[in-house]
Amino acid sequence: MSEASFFTDMLQSITDRGRQLLFSGARATQAAAKADLQTLCEMLLSSRGEASGMALAAEILDRWEALDSEGAQAFLDMLHEKFGPDTVRLDQAIENYRTDKSSAAIIALHQAAEPRRQELLRRLNHAPNGTAKLVRMRQQLLASKDQSEGYHALNADFTHLFGSWFNRGFLTLRPIDWTTPAYILEKIIKYEAVHEIAGWEELRRRLAPADRRCFAFFHPRLADEPLVFVEVALTRSVPSAIGDVLVEGREQINADEATTAVFYSISNCQDGLRGISFGNFLIKQVVEDLRRDLPGLKNFVTLSPVPGFARWLAKARPETLTALDDPKWPDNEKTAAEVERVLLPLAARYFLTERTPGGRPVDPVARFHLGNGARLERLNFLGDRSAKAMQQAHGLMVNYLYKLDDIVANHEALAQRGEVIASPGVKGLLSQTDESRRSGNGQQGSRPFAQIMNTTLGGGRK
Amino acid sequence: MSEASFFTDMLQSITDRGRQLLFSGARATQAAAKADLQTLCEMLLSSRGEASGMALAAEILDRWEALDSEGAQAFLDMLHEKFGPDTVRLDQAIENYRTDKSSAAIIALHQAAEPRRQELLRRLNHAPNGTAKLVRMRQQLLASKDQSEGYHALNADFTHLFGSWFNRGFLTLRPIDWTTPAYILEKIIKYEAVHEIAGWEELRRRLAPADRRCFAFFHPRLADEPLVFVEVALTRSVPSAIGDVLVEGREQINADEATTAVFYSISNCQDGLRGISFGNFLIKQVVEDLRRDLPGLKNFVTLSPVPGFARWLAKARPETLTALDDPKWPDNEKTAAEVERVLLPLAARYFLTERTPGGRPVDPVARFHLGNGARLERLNFLGDRSAKAMQQAHGLMVNYLYKLDDIVANHEALAQRGEVIASPGVKGLLSQTDESRRSGNGQQGSRPFAQIMNTTLGGGRK
Amino acid sequence: MSEASFFTDMLQSITDRGRQLLFSGARATQAAAKADLQTLCEMLLSSRGEASGMALAAEILDRWEALDSEGAQAFLDMLHEKFGPDTVRLDQAIENYRTDKSSAAIIALHQAAEPRRQELLRRLNHAPNGTAKLVRMRQQLLASKDQSEGYHALNADFTHLFGSWFNRGFLTLRPIDWTTPAYILEKIIKYEAVHEIAGWEELRRRLAPADRRCFAFFHPRLADEPLVFVEVALTRSVPSAIGDVLVEGREQINADEATTAVFYSISNCQDGLRGISFGNFLIKQVVEDLRRDLPGLKNFVTLSPVPGFARWLAKARPETLTALDDPKWPDNEKTAAEVERVLLPLAARYFLTERTPGGRPVDPVARFHLGNGARLERLNFLGDRSAKAMQQAHGLMVNYLYKLDDIVANHEALAQRGEVIASPGVKGLLSQTDESRRSGNGQQGSRPFAQIMNTTLGGGRK
Amino acid sequence: MSEASFFTDMLQSITDRGRQLLFSGARATQAAAKADLQTLCEMLLSSRGEASGMALAAEILDRWEALDSEGAQAFLDMLHEKFGPDTVRLDQAIENYRTDKSSAAIIALHQAAEPRRQELLRRLNHAPNGTAKLVRMRQQLLASKDQSEGYHALNADFTHLFGSWFNRGFLTLRPIDWTTPAYILEKIIKYEAVHEIAGWEELRRRLAPADRRCFAFFHPRLADEPLVFVEVALTRSVPSAIGDVLVEGREQINADEATTAVFYSISNCQDGLRGISFGNFLIKQVVEDLRRDLPGLKNFVTLSPVPGFARWLAKARPETLTALDDPKWPDNEKTAAEVERVLLPLAARYFLTERTPGGRPVDPVARFHLGNGARLERLNFLGDRSAKAMQQAHGLMVNYLYKLDDIVANHEALAQRGEVIASPGVKGLLSQTDESRRSGNGQQGSRPFAQIMNTTLGGGRK
Repeated sequence: MSEASFFTDMLQSITDRGRQLLFSGARATQAAAKADLQTLCEMLLSSRGEASGMALAAEILDRWEALDSEGAQAFLDMLHEKFGPDTVRLDQAIENYRTDKSSAAIIALHQAAEPRRQELLRRLNHAPNGTAKLVRMRQQLLASKDQSEGYHALNADFTHLFGSWFNRGFLTLRPIDWTTPAYILEKIIKYEAVHEIAGWEELRRRLAPADRRCFAFFHPRLADEPLVFVEVALTRSVPSAIGDVLVEGREQINADEATTAVFYSISNCQDGLRGISFGNFLIKQVVEDLRRDLPGLKNFVTLSPVPGFARWLAKARPETLTALDDPKWPDNEKTAAEVERVLLPLAARYFLTERTPGGRPVDPVARFHLGNGARLERLNFLGDRSAKAMQQAHGLMVNYLYKLDDIVANHEALAQRGEVIASPGVKGLLSQTDESRRSGNGQQGSRPFAQIMNTTLGGGRK
Repeated sequence: MSEASFFTDMLQSITDRGRQLLFSGARATQAAAKADLQTLCEMLLSSRGEASGMALAAEILDRWEALDSEGAQAFLDMLHEKFGPDTVRLDQAIENYRTDKSSAAIIALHQAAEPRRQELLRRLNHAPNGTAKLVRMRQQLLASKDQSEGYHALNADFTHLFGSWFNRGFLTLRPIDWTTPAYILEKIIKYEAVHEIAGWEELRRRLAPADRRCFAFFHPRLADEPLVFVEVALTRSVPSAIGDVLVEGREQINADEATTAVFYSISNCQDGLRGISFGNFLIKQVVEDLRRDLPGLKNFVTLSPVPGFARWLAKARPETLTALDDPKWPDNEKTAAEVERVLLPLAARYFLTERTPGGRPVDPVARFHLGNGARLERLNFLGDRSAKAMQQAHGLMVNYLYKLDDIVANHEALAQRGEVIASPGVKGLLSQTDESRRSGNGQQGSRPFAQIMNTTLGGGRK
Repeated sequence: MSEASFFTDMLQSITDRGRQLLFSGARATQAAAKADLQTLCEMLLSSRGEASGMALAAEILDRWEALDSEGAQAFLDMLHEKFGPDTVRLDQAIENYRTDKSSAAIIALHQAAEPRRQELLRRLNHAPNGTAKLVRMRQQLLASKDQSEGYHALNADFTHLFGSWFNRGFLTLRPIDWTTPAYILEKIIKYEAVHEIAGWEELRRRLAPADRRCFAFFHPRLADEPLVFVEVALTRSVPSAIGDVLVEGREQINADEATTAVFYSISNCQDGLRGISFGNFLIKQVVEDLRRDLPGLKNFVTLSPVPGFARWLAKARPETLTALDDPKWPDNEKTAAEVERVLLPLAARYFLTERTPGGRPVDPVARFHLGNGARLERLNFLGDRSAKAMQQAHGLMVNYLYKLDDIVANHEALAQRGEVIASPGVKGLLSQTDESRRSGNGQQGSRPFAQIMNTTLGGGRK
Repeated sequence: MSEASFFTDMLQSITDRGRQLLFSGARATQAAAKADLQTLCEMLLSSRGEASGMALAAEILDRWEALDSEGAQAFLDMLHEKFGPDTVRLDQAIENYRTDKSSAAIIALHQAAEPRRQELLRRLNHAPNGTAKLVRMRQQLLASKDQSEGYHALNADFTHLFGSWFNRGFLTLRPIDWTTPAYILEKIIKYEAVHEIAGWEELRRRLAPADRRCFAFFHPRLADEPLVFVEVALTRSVPSAIGDVLVEGREQINADEATTAVFYSISNCQDGLRGISFGNFLIKQVVEDLRRDLPGLKNFVTLSPVPGFARWLAKARPETLTALDDPKWPDNEKTAAEVERVLLPLAARYFLTERTPGGRPVDPVARFHLGNGARLERLNFLGDRSAKAMQQAHGLMVNYLYKLDDIVANHEALAQRGEVIASPGVKGLLSQTDESRRSGNGQQGSRPFAQIMNTTLGGGRK
């Protein structure tokens, strides 16, 4: 039994007893047994004894778990409607603050403006498995696609609390490999979100070889659940296609022969923790870890999908897509070459000049890596020919380069000036877009792509 | 190396690099190198990149650690003065709320009222060993005995954050015994606050025998530091004197022969976590743990000091104390008997009827146990003849009884009605106070104390 | 990395260095580099320095590993021919013993009679992974199906040494479950010898449910390799067919609802350890372990194959087998009933009265369990309809009952008097064999089998 | 509870049950209950069931533990007298061998010559804690100072079995530091045999600082007991006096600043394993371990006592000792200088030319290190002024140098040619002995010792 489940068992036994006390025997507790969830929540907020508090928290969460989807929505609504701030107290605090600008008055104001459900959620967290259940509760909230004021208010409270509880200081990095317990490994299969793992044999191929690594963040209170994990290939060059990384029967190398660590899949595991960012910390810590263990590693790159590209392209340049209408276009060498000539400059534009209304890169994966301070290193034409990748990005993949010495500067360039830092090769492609070519900058277009790319990385492709 | 320190090392290496980037080379970072702590804190609050954020947090905490006591006080003052809420924004939020009572407006108000140092402290927590350093920072604050508004405002922020970070759900209970690593054990010696541990041999006598137990709470981020621990003796009767528990060469029993678990010492370890209550959870979980492992255990009691008794007595009944003026009074059998006759009824009154202005028991240890739902079980005359106990309590010790089935009711009796739940024996003593005796209720006074006590516990004293 | 492999790495580095010294530079070591394996073995036997000894041992085992099958056989032959006892010394020792019957003379005689290869194997064991390699070396020996004198002599030496090294006192029992590392689990799939495990999903069904257990013995020097393991089903009755135990989608129960632990598969993992018996210890320790954890368990039984039955039957009663000639016979209800009527009494005779020339039960699985003191509890007609079981035993399975209080007596009955202890139900079947029925004892034949069986076990079948 | 004790508990419960069966109820077992130890041993040797075997083994060892010293001696005598080889069988085997020189005949002879107690001891080893008890049994044997034939025969059997069971392949190296459990640490205090550890504070000074290391070998079956340990100081030069290493308040360095690892104390822990050599493996593995962790380490030396020097000197050169008669001689600078001038050359002779009758170095510590392939590096006048060292060696200490590249050659030089490999400095001293000086080789005598020494080590002394 893992330590976490042992601990859970113990908590369970404490609270079972408390609940027994609460809900048996005395008159007062008979009332409690019949109480509806709102009443129980009020009781929990006003309780002062810890044993009764833990029992109440457990009772509430157990009842909540038994709710059907309608009931669960009603519970969320109730949290919003009934456990907002005490507005009477808030008005008093405002009134008081008008005449007394002291710290004490501000504290009182701050406390009065805090929705009562924040304290309620903190107390629910005392229940056995409380954290896991609250993560699921937020998952329900996010799934509700409710866009009401209540939704946003409630989400703000969850986000605030989870940001504190899942503070990076409390996370533990653990390697995932073929010595990892099976019950963790099956979650890796389940949560892999980028390149599906077909079963245990494929999992073994990703974890067991000497030139493969995987790392996950865990939280002490969710000990059996990875929060986020990254899969890494150790190679002698920067791969341009995911097939080369994942193919069965590929040639393996010793870890100390590798010059390059390729982060080819990063998956968040807990829907209920969406927006609580761990991935950036994960990559940076893994880079440090690998550098220390394998001094031969010089390049740290990703091999990443471009999930928003096809949709953007369909809107931005519908006329260029006709060749893509035939799903077999990659098989025709001539067509493929023509597509490549047109597609890559457009992709460069997609990354380098397109922006969301908020001024950020339009591609979500790009937002993540560029926001972390990575550099857009290379565009890989037909890097992934899976159905999903063909549909999302016409097979395009990209490499982002993590160079620790440049991370801060890259990040600041994007954050302050809105500038995407990219390799010369990628920037060169930009001048080949229709507009550029029309304006006479197209001479670079004849230079083979692979050659361009070779100049951008110390290693060079095979 | 413990996992925690391994992790710390890794964090250190990440942040060292970040710091290097920050404070070398570029013009901007040269400025940072010279920046004062306030500027760095502002930078940290406005930073968006995690690597730079961790580096800044580490830099700030390192500089803070190097401050002398004057500088440290100035730092605390700065946190209060410069990192309170943004009052312009707060005033706007209030103004807005007057016309718009929406959740969004309240959230905005709540956020505006939050002192900016709360977010600052959250970001400082990202630094290696950040949690430990912030705990020390609060320890400095508490030690400053400052009673200014700033002190209270700052303390409120720490209390709020620590309450969330040290949520009971995140604590781990670990047994402490003779198989525990030495670096933890030496902290047990250091932190023991009730009955001093003279050295390793005495520690061994408290941990190694089959009829002794010790448990501590740990937090994953402070892995090498116990937060609170309790020492337990397993016995066949409820002891009335600490000497019987601690004496060298005492007769040992097998754990499964024991009927009674005696919590004879509970020590909080971290001054900086004062007021973040763990002890109540600790006792209740240890009770559950012991019950499960040792089904023969029927009684769970403390053997506790009465630290406030002598001071109270000196004020309340100066005239009764004359016999106590001679430090050798316990050696004179007749004097001792007379003191006992007078002292115990007064002690009963001290516990049962005296109250703080806030309506709580005056004795701090009583507040803790009674607040947890324990029952005041027995007064032990001359239970501790150490100099400290003679000075604080004229040697008085008491047993508090933890009966899980009664905890909630006992707690509620105190919380709701201000009633201290005590055994009949203790309540009987109350009628023997001067007032009672004057009013003719003194007949019980002739009943021997030991006999009274025997009726209150199933076991009975040897 | 497991502790064992860490240790292995370290040993490796020590011996690499030693080997480097041995086989480089100096003239003497150049000779060694060219030396044949026999010379190296002689060097190892005469070496006194440990560093050089470990290096030599590693060198010999490395060269041995590189041999083809012919070379490997030649190596085994050499061990027998060249590293037997020193016969000159032996003759002297005998001569001396004739005149001097002292202990010292006997010790000298004993030592002189010890084949030199015993010490050679002990020294080879110092090499990194030496134990694993020597286990493989014996595996080759056993596989050679050589029946020469040399084979037996060499095997006697291995058996003697392995018996000492794998002394039960040095084995560790570990539960195997869904928290076990994957690299151990894949070996469970590989080594399962009774009921094949088709893949990870089936493995999960055998390990993860609350009513399943698995235990293995490990040796500290072969830390990544189970030696033997047993799979256990926790049930509410004694199962009569393996299909009920293994079927996907079966109803699961809580472990504490179980009354019966069924050992349905026991597999030895290391061919090279054949004849070094662990299985008996394993079952008995697992019984103790389960009793302690699950006091509700009352029956400990196996569900076992009968691998020798069909072969015996073909010889013993060829005329009874005609119905079995049609492989679809079990599908015809009437035929099946008739087969059952004839087969079970013969099976009873197979177990109860047939004996090997050495006077032991003829079935190998029966020899194992009955020799351990189990009782033959029940014959299960068509308990296993897999092709293998149909071919080996016409589908027959049996339950052996492990009742700790009777184990010694059962064992002694077999060992001293050659008596197989069986349940009344099984013994009753014996009287139904042709011979019995001819002599008029057949009346019990009409009693339904299930009913007979029900009387033999407290539980009773569903 | 450690895994080892858990396992012990389980074994205990199996054997308790077996014993209950054996010694209760049936007539046969009543006999057993009364049987004397010899009868029980015969029963154990003839038993075939494992459960009864383990129970018998446990019963025998329990009874043996209860014996007084006379009874224990009688038990040892019985092992020798009654459990030697079966001489009738041996004579037959010899007779058979005369006509049949086959392997089978030799095996039969070998087995017949094996004392029956070897198998008896193997079976006793199955009992819970059997290994530990047998180690104590041999400890008693060694302590008996019996020099009879029986003693030697019995000791040969123990040595043979322990050599196999404690084969280096089965030992585990573990670091001992301030994170080690207290129950192991107290054994370090207890077993330290060279420089006494006065208590926990001194232990802390030896284990906790960054420039200190300690390593021990453990055996899986004696998990709570170190077999041998070595204490290491990491320094910047080769120390010449133990006081510099152990002094309280000495200046500490970082581990990675160290150039030299000093093995200043090696202690065997188990008297019952005397002669089963681990220390040589320990040193070599620790050297490898440290090299890997701390690449800055260049020198691996000991700082060792010379326990046999004073005794040898008293015999060899009684006339030179007059100055040493005054125990305060080291305090007189002039006397000390004169003693040094005389003593060191004699010490050189003691190491380099004196030999035991068997041709080995006379000093036991020298035999150990030189036999391991170390080089005698430096003589340290007044290196240890403790009473013990003054008495044993007039304060002399020496450094032995472990240079992995030379170990094999050094070892062979001693083993083959009887030559002690020493530094030029030490060899130079040899020419200063009386004999040398008389023959005119004394001119080197005027060269200061420190200067000579400086030339022998890269580092050089401060």
